[in-house]
Amino acid sequence: MSSVMQKLLTPVASGPAEPPRNKVTVVGVGMVGMACAVSVLLRDLADELALVDVMEDKLKGELMDLQHGSLFLKTSKIVADKGKRISLCVCHWSGSEGVTSLNRVRFFYPAVQILPLAPTVDVLTYVTWKLSGLPKHRVIGSGTNLDSARFRFLMAERLGIHASSFNGWVLGEHGDTSVPVWSGVNVAGVNLQKLNPEFGLDGDKEDWKATHKAVVDSAYEVIKLKGYTNWAIGLSVADLTESIIKNMSRIHPVSTMVKDMYGIGEEVFLSLPCVLNSNGVGSVINMTLTDAEVGQLKKSADTLWGIQKDLKDI
Amino acid sequence: MSSVMQKLLTPVASGPAEPPRNKVTVVGVGMVGMACAVSVLLRDLADELALVDVMEDKLKGELMDLQHGSLFLKTSKIVADKGKRISLCVCHWSGSEGVTSLNRVRFFYPAVQILPLAPTVDVLTYVTWKLSGLPKHRVIGSGTNLDSARFRFLMAERLGIHASSFNGWVLGEHGDTSVPVWSGVNVAGVNLQKLNPEFGLDGDKEDWKATHKAVVDSAYEVIKLKGYTNWAIGLSVADLTESIIKNMSRIHPVSTMVKDMYGIGEEVFLSLPCVLNSNGVGSVINMTLTDAEVGQLKKSADTLWGIQKDLKDI
Amino acid sequence: MSSVMQKLLTPVASGPAEPPRNKVTVVGVGMVGMACAVSVLLRDLADELALVDVMEDKLKGELMDLQHGSLFLKTSKIVADKGKRISLCVCHWSGSEGVTSLNRVRFFYPAVQILPLAPTVDVLTYVTWKLSGLPKHRVIGSGTNLDSARFRFLMAERLGIHASSFNGWVLGEHGDTSVPVWSGVNVAGVNLQKLNPEFGLDGDKEDWKATHKAVVDSAYEVIKLKGYTNWAIGLSVADLTESIIKNMSRIHPVSTMVKDMYGIGEEVFLSLPCVLNSNGVGSVINMTLTDAEVGQLKKSADTLWGIQKDLKDI
Amino acid sequence: MSSVMQKLLTPVASGPAEPPRNKVTVVGVGMVGMACAVSVLLRDLADELALVDVMEDKLKGELMDLQHGSLFLKTSKIVADKGKRISLCVCHWSGSEGVTSLNRVRFFYPAVQILPLAPTVDVLTYVTWKLSGLPKHRVIGSGTNLDSARFRFLMAERLGIHASSFNGWVLGEHGDTSVPVWSGVNVAGVNLQKLNPEFGLDGDKEDWKATHKAVVDSAYEVIKLKGYTNWAIGLSVADLTESIIKNMSRIHPVSTMVKDMYGIGEEVFLSLPCVLNSNGVGSVINMTLTDAEVGQLKKSADTLWGIQKDLKDI
Repeated sequence: MSSVMQKLLTPVASGPAEPPRNKVTVVGVGMVGMACAVSVLLRDLADELALVDVMEDKLKGELMDLQHGSLFLKTSKIVADKGKRISLCVCHWSGSEGVTSLNRVRFFYPAVQILPLAPTVDVLTYVTWKLSGLPKHRVIGSGTNLDSARFRFLMAERLGIHASSFNGWVLGEHGDTSVPVWSGVNVAGVNLQKLNPEFGLDGDKEDWKATHKAVVDSAYEVIKLKGYTNWAIGLSVADLTESIIKNMSRIHPVSTMVKDMYGIGEEVFLSLPCVLNSNGVGSVINMTLTDAEVGQLKKSADTLWGIQKDLKDI
Repeated sequence: MSSVMQKLLTPVASGPAEPPRNKVTVVGVGMVGMACAVSVLLRDLADELALVDVMEDKLKGELMDLQHGSLFLKTSKIVADKGKRISLCVCHWSGSEGVTSLNRVRFFYPAVQILPLAPTVDVLTYVTWKLSGLPKHRVIGSGTNLDSARFRFLMAERLGIHASSFNGWVLGEHGDTSVPVWSGVNVAGVNLQKLNPEFGLDGDKEDWKATHKAVVDSAYEVIKLKGYTNWAIGLSVADLTESIIKNMSRIHPVSTMVKDMYGIGEEVFLSLPCVLNSNGVGSVINMTLTDAEVGQLKKSADTLWGIQKDLKDI
Repeated sequence: MSSVMQKLLTPVASGPAEPPRNKVTVVGVGMVGMACAVSVLLRDLADELALVDVMEDKLKGELMDLQHGSLFLKTSKIVADKGKRISLCVCHWSGSEGVTSLNRVRFFYPAVQILPLAPTVDVLTYVTWKLSGLPKHRVIGSGTNLDSARFRFLMAERLGIHASSFNGWVLGEHGDTSVPVWSGVNVAGVNLQKLNPEFGLDGDKEDWKATHKAVVDSAYEVIKLKGYTNWAIGLSVADLTESIIKNMSRIHPVSTMVKDMYGIGEEVFLSLPCVLNSNGVGSVINMTLTDAEVGQLKKSADTLWGIQKDLKDI
Repeated sequence: MSSVMQKLLTPVASGPAEPPRNKVTVVGVGMVGMACAVSVLLRDLADELALVDVMEDKLKGELMDLQHGSLFLKTSKIVADKGKRISLCVCHWSGSEGVTSLNRVRFFYPAVQILPLAPTVDVLTYVTWKLSGLPKHRVIGSGTNLDSARFRFLMAERLGIHASSFNGWVLGEHGDTSVPVWSGVNVAGVNLQKLNPEFGLDGDKEDWKATHKAVVDSAYEVIKLKGYTNWAIGLSVADLTESIIKNMSRIHPVSTMVKDMYGIGEEVFLSLPCVLNSNGVGSVINMTLTDAEVGQLKKSADTLWGIQKDLKDI
């Protein structure tokens, strides 16, 4: 006797289903990974979402919880996919080799996590690149994308405007030594250093520099208050994902290989404004930096290389 | 001397750009085609949109006008693509052969246009299928998708609820002889014929049948009032497109090949509820129809075959 | 000397800013509350989002984390608003009295949390209604909205279709004794009990009843696996919020006051399909239930009243 | 005997329905008005959309066509509302007086239409302001919002980046004499005149100035090719609407009253970057313009005043 399904449905398409075209894999289902996953789902970016983790119970629990929300989502497949091909990984966007590297470097996959005392996201991006063998334009660190978003929010809030209408870029190393490019800060094309030449600098009586300090401190403060940060990083990573999936060629401050730029001689990853499209990093913006700003970038490069040169086995 | 572009940008990705993954081609830039195009763009469905038409000036004008709105859109490439591969065509979703067929059958491409005196969308879908050589699950007519949307709006409005909360299906031939399946009409699973056995039938004192008549009449009325219809059909086609692009397996009433269903012996296209996914039509829902409803479907099939059998050269 | 802000901006509008028109307040910033908040933000539903909680550090941390994502959001104001007017509260939608009641009934605000051993969401909705003095159409429990979403996902997955194309309703008491209305389950208007009269019942050889058991078990299972559930409830509450904010009159299964329906004599809240618009509950759908289904509802009502009648001080 | 509706629904909410909170009225249902309406609908901005026009048949046709798409829209009420309160009018955002003025000045309502030989949008905005008696921050012309969008698209396309990552502003009078502020043009904060001091100026060997000429010409060209322009203006007006409805305080180049700015002595409307929030124009950005750029603004002001001073009866 026929089943209800056989009575209800007559198959039409023959042959295997098409593979997904915009599958996003989130490696690591901790607070950050799940904020990334939910941001990607609610922005309708992927036709399939995969979660990967070594904690099997937690992984299955998160998977079921997301699937139970399917009625409210456009992404129809949400799967756990340990070991399968990765089309896009918000931690370290990469091909299948990425998973192998993850198996070798366990500490590694919360790459976009803020780890102020640990090797930074910039080092992790370098390690991923080395281990994966991927071309450099396919390995992207979220870098100062979040620092810049915080900077733009705090500056814009002080001026009473929306963050998206405040053009400011925080570059270099993610975290304490990030570099706000005060010389380029503008609103509607009005350079704020033209209004006050000391804007953002030490002598500034209005102390706008304090806002960058607040950016650096805010990660620590949020962690102190709630134990971790996740929403802003999740939203920012979904924004990068959108530029790649939709081949948009928008410019974001992300961590990319900067050897041979600004006199940096070693293979280190630092954040610069990058054009992101379906290839990953299409190109890098050449900033017009002051000597002091270039000095800060170089110093960060040296610090990072100091860590990287001692890494074994990669 | 370097150009501004060379000074501004350092290329990173090498090799050719990746091809688009979700390119939507709209064939025909009349009122309906452009409503489809704008609906697809504003729903953020495609990573590339192509317009195709033989009217070169009109085509270029529409292309420029959409491109000028790029700042407000997520779809970064809007192109005119005469003769290139078609990933998805809102008129007749098909592979590259579709374009050849268009060159042969000029009258053909406004397939989703409402043409009450002309061969209907159901015939056009058949012709496209025959000319293209595509498997049947890849050729879809918008069919009664619009009739159903109108039916659901008008019924829901009378009840004071949203169209999406009124479950009703209009099937069969698009237009005058479409078949509302009164026996399945329900709200929150409450079958309305259980509340009133004559609901939708001739003896019904509340005359709910009039609403289906209003559906049939409304196309004529809108055309009389404004000269054409375009917005609702554009929105409804974008909805079909979304189910295919996002591989959603949602069910829509669309025109599909119905030979060997309900005792129909000829190759005709009629609308039935179809599961749409990235393959096109994944499966068809087997309706539990009354004898009268089956009779109406068969009569439509005969009418369509009467037109089709005399078509030459396909 | 003028500040940078004075040099940059010339005020135009005079007088006070307009109050927000669609402010959503989330009471309780635990896992569920934050999933609600993020779902509302990413769906662009509110022009202002407020978080309220008695845990000041946690509250401030969550607030800062969301604000840091402002660049990626359309909701421009994200505030902590202890004690101010509540336009919409995802836990217990209510007016300003709601906050007072929260101070009196601390256990109370995670109203949409799954608490299988504790007074259920249905009791909490009743308590909120009593304490707030609001009319009954303005106090809504999320009730079986989540149970129904899980049911539709699990049933649809078994059939290979999208949850939104599977019409099924789980009603009554949220949790273990919820009632799936098998007699109304349909796909494209095809009643599945017409295909198999035992569909969903005890004698069914395909054991579709197991899917409802899986719905009941899944809350326990997710909690066992990850410690709590949050994403699906967050998404489902945002969906209710959308119907109210956009005045959509969509129908959702939510907990509403059912006295005088189905022979229930006491003031208890149980889930029935409700038309949600800007007034809250506009109307309730009268289900065509079997005697057994009515019996289950009454039994739930008795159980709830057994708890409620002993509540002091409300 | 009860009707189906009475059997199906039990009313819960008593009293009148709440008035809409974000009603958008589109005055004029020509090509531009309808592109605005569809952009607002597909962006889910309004809880109610109203169309107003004196052409009754056309109005009713457009209304029905949009309503037939309700199934695919979140905006549940689409109405024709001749003479009622206007919450937001994309042509001239205003209060109820706006309608009176429309009755007096019939030529007037396609205010955002590109009319190169006719009184410009800037004059129409002035007339609306005068007739309506509204405060100046509540009367906004779309002005160079579209010119800027075209400029950003064309410049960005030449650089291979997305329009939203190219920061450039076209100000002053909409149309032929609009002023591109070359001195402020930047990408990621890199001022392009720093890379090439002649960038955008007459001596520039790369002739970037040609892009502004293309902006001016493009309106004429699109009109020549397709007969009118509508999509880009519709999208751009929906973007302004979003900033107002969501109280976002984003900055847009729109036409505002500029008396007493840049030495302009008369009451004329010209486009400057404006902070748009729920009040309308919250503030204006003070540009750092060159003498030549200020001269161009003043010349435009003189031209506009030359037209305005002869307008009778307002």
